[in-house]
Amino acid sequence: MIVNKIKLTNFRNHKNLSLEFDYATTFIIGDNGAGKTNILEALHMISTSKSFRARYDSDVINYPAQFSTIKASIKTGEENKENYDLELQISRRSPAGDRDRFNHDELMYSSRPEIKDEIHTSTKKVKVNGVPKSIHGFTGIFKSVLFTPQNIDVITGSPAERRKYIDSVLFQIDKTYKRTHNNYTKALKQRNKLLEMIREERKGFDQLEYWENILEQSGSDIHKMRSDLLDFLDKKAKVYGKTLNSGYYEIEIKYKKSLITKERFSEYRNKEIAAKSTLIGPHKDDFVIEYNNYRLSDFGSRGQQRTVLVALKMCETDYIEEKTKETPVLLLDDIFSELDKKHREILINMVPKQQTVITSTELPVKNAFVINL
Amino acid sequence: MIVNKIKLTNFRNHKNLSLEFDYATTFIIGDNGAGKTNILEALHMISTSKSFRARYDSDVINYPAQFSTIKASIKTGEENKENYDLELQISRRSPAGDRDRFNHDELMYSSRPEIKDEIHTSTKKVKVNGVPKSIHGFTGIFKSVLFTPQNIDVITGSPAERRKYIDSVLFQIDKTYKRTHNNYTKALKQRNKLLEMIREERKGFDQLEYWENILEQSGSDIHKMRSDLLDFLDKKAKVYGKTLNSGYYEIEIKYKKSLITKERFSEYRNKEIAAKSTLIGPHKDDFVIEYNNYRLSDFGSRGQQRTVLVALKMCETDYIEEKTKETPVLLLDDIFSELDKKHREILINMVPKQQTVITSTELPVKNAFVINL
Repeated sequence: MIVNKIKLTNFRNHKNLSLEFDYATTFIIGDNGAGKTNILEALHMISTSKSFRARYDSDVINYPAQFSTIKASIKTGEENKENYDLELQISRRSPAGDRDRFNHDELMYSSRPEIKDEIHTSTKKVKVNGVPKSIHGFTGIFKSVLFTPQNIDVITGSPAERRKYIDSVLFQIDKTYKRTHNNYTKALKQRNKLLEMIREERKGFDQLEYWENILEQSGSDIHKMRSDLLDFLDKKAKVYGKTLNSGYYEIEIKYKKSLITKERFSEYRNKEIAAKSTLIGPHKDDFVIEYNNYRLSDFGSRGQQRTVLVALKMCETDYIEEKTKETPVLLLDDIFSELDKKHREILINMVPKQQTVITSTELPVKNAFVINL
Repeated sequence: MIVNKIKLTNFRNHKNLSLEFDYATTFIIGDNGAGKTNILEALHMISTSKSFRARYDSDVINYPAQFSTIKASIKTGEENKENYDLELQISRRSPAGDRDRFNHDELMYSSRPEIKDEIHTSTKKVKVNGVPKSIHGFTGIFKSVLFTPQNIDVITGSPAERRKYIDSVLFQIDKTYKRTHNNYTKALKQRNKLLEMIREERKGFDQLEYWENILEQSGSDIHKMRSDLLDFLDKKAKVYGKTLNSGYYEIEIKYKKSLITKERFSEYRNKEIAAKSTLIGPHKDDFVIEYNNYRLSDFGSRGQQRTVLVALKMCETDYIEEKTKETPVLLLDDIFSELDKKHREILINMVPKQQTVITSTELPVKNAFVINL
């Protein structure tokens, strides 16, 4: 999979920008505020239809324009012979057709809990080869794997961040996973309501089994798919770990499943009623990254954490490739800051097995394909 | 306020390290994993008695040692003529005196909700000029302001992150604030319990007023102190904004108070009973940083966000100086990564008004006082 060209209109600070990318690796070099990350944001939106950093879609529209467009030419399929022209357009829409009724400042910053941010309403339209499509049909045609410094949360953040990460990978490659995940989440909500009712009104015990069966079924499906991914990442990370520093880095990824079985449900029943909440299952899963037998989150330096994260992103690329038979494009936002020279060089030597777009304030290598912003 | 020397024993990767700092600015330069951040962590622990990155105090002890010591020589008072020798020691302690009873791996990674991380128990002892003190009497003798890349959460994170930030500044300089904050939090908890009781059992209405009076009183005290801080930061940030780039950066900090009054309590009463939770008050406060009239969190580049964050840290230094008549030491962890050359230079020219310790993978200036790790 390759992205040839991208054309941005009124996207963030780029009023009108056309870029061509190298088939191997492109460096986007520019000063702070030049709009380097915005280009990766646009590429990633073409891939997922969502921004990884905007709170509202309308945030990407260059003020005072009314719409913003991203166009991209993609090559895919065997030997990259299939061409796709992808287009995504975001337009502002006044809330309820009457924008001036609202006090904008109040809406944006309100501390009044009942006020919603209606001001940010926008519409999104997508086309494939000039033909309008649904968002669902558009998403995932262009496959990409993104790394931003904020991703460090996967390592240092809460288990919820890690579950979000696993899910985001699996959502991309498996529509069944998404459906199963939705079923699980709905059943979980219902069972928690039931637990509350049981505690407060002492009735509803007879309905527990029904929800527990659904949770057990969908939960173990989720566990199976997550295990498959995490086993793959663990195996591959070990290989990358060796490349990173001639055997010094031993990376191990351990999946910490919160098992969901009839026995565990009986074991936790009383606690769950007291807590009015389901205490076991995939929504309590976590995984641990160890590095030379220590928890990377607690004992790794930030530079080490970043290096391992890039390795993880490359494993993710391999996983998507294995499952979809397409090599995603790697989007690396400022991976070099915080890294010393040795690690910069190792990383640069690792990336060129797929098309890669990298932003940086300075060029870390010679003879590279460079876009200066 | 100046830190002359620091001596680390079994602290993280430093088994035995003695350093002397320059009176103005010291650069700590080293490769990834050399232990640069660990030195700032130690300095900050001498200041606050807590680590800003360890989940458990015992994490800082170099394995397999049983204790870790930080010693620091501080100069303070008028013309920095007072000397203080500060010492902080952390020792491992077996849980319930019997460490081997526990399955360590199970304890550390357990997905079983009832298991606590008892394995990480440790004790902390502090001395001032050789005399044992309470943690309370030790904390704050050495005043410091820390910047780490993770602080970007103050800008891009949730309102809770920003409240935590404001509180951490005020806790440092005002013991009344801490007490008022505790009173507020306790009353809030009680009122939320009461709201739950009212919803479920339709009784307890008569007790609402009691808790609301406490919340109103302590809440408005909190608002007053937070306003004082945020007004100060806003005023100072405007000045630093100009230095940052000859008038280009217009920084504005807007405090978004969630007011707490009798009227608002009546207005929200029904919603609060339905939600079983108090919806107004300082625990819903937020502040917004604008930058050239845009929200920095949504429209600033990461480089811009980092630059403004450093400016914010310098305002914080000024605030502590104004309130305590002591100039805190500035600890800057890797502020240069992600910044272009121009911004690096501007920042370096801004910092030397107080003692500053900076870590970096590369030296960003010539003729600096450097510690090579």
